[in-house]
Amino acid sequence: MKHKETSCAPDCPVQKTADLMGGKWTMLIVRDLLSGPKRYSQLRVSVGEISPRILASRLKHLAKAGVVLRKVFPTVPPQTEYRLTERGKGLKPIIEAMARFGSRL
Amino acid sequence: MKHKETSCAPDCPVQKTADLMGGKWTMLIVRDLLSGPKRYSQLRVSVGEISPRILASRLKHLAKAGVVLRKVFPTVPPQTEYRLTERGKGLKPIIEAMARFGSRL
Repeated sequence: MKHKETSCAPDCPVQKTADLMGGKWTMLIVRDLLSGPKRYSQLRVSVGEISPRILASRLKHLAKAGVVLRKVFPTVPPQTEYRLTERGKGLKPIIEAMARFGSRL
Repeated sequence: MKHKETSCAPDCPVQKTADLMGGKWTMLIVRDLLSGPKRYSQLRVSVGEISPRILASRLKHLAKAGVVLRKVFPTVPPQTEYRLTERGKGLKPIIEAMARFGSRL
């Protein structure tokens, strides 16, 4: 990989992805949605020690970025399901590369 | 890739990597160090709109995590250089996957 493909500005693809993925929690939400759609309550368990407020804010960010699709079921009480969009599924190689790196730590 | 390779707990490799990489700035620092060692002053320019306080704190985090090596040159004033360790260089496939994803955004 050439220098300019990783270090670049201002229209850098790495930066675009970093802006979109943001931080740790966002990555873990994407990780958990790669195995299929999840209810909000399921994500609260699977993502780990995340506060409900942070989880909701990260899901909102991912939905706005076109990575996650939010679907509300008209049950009583209403249930909310999240799934990756096609764009969101495109993050899989990044999560896989993270898994490979982390397995050597 | 099987489900358990991406969604897992508590010893999840994705989570370990997410803990280590943290957030956006850390990713951009790693991106810039992939092309070779940089002085602190060079990183301030290449990373982008980062505050000196945040840059110093992220570099400290990366050094503690064994990703970055800090070298101080006994000049007047002293100059500090940062380079990726072997572990740090292992993050390259993640940054490359981010570049590929970002170039399609």
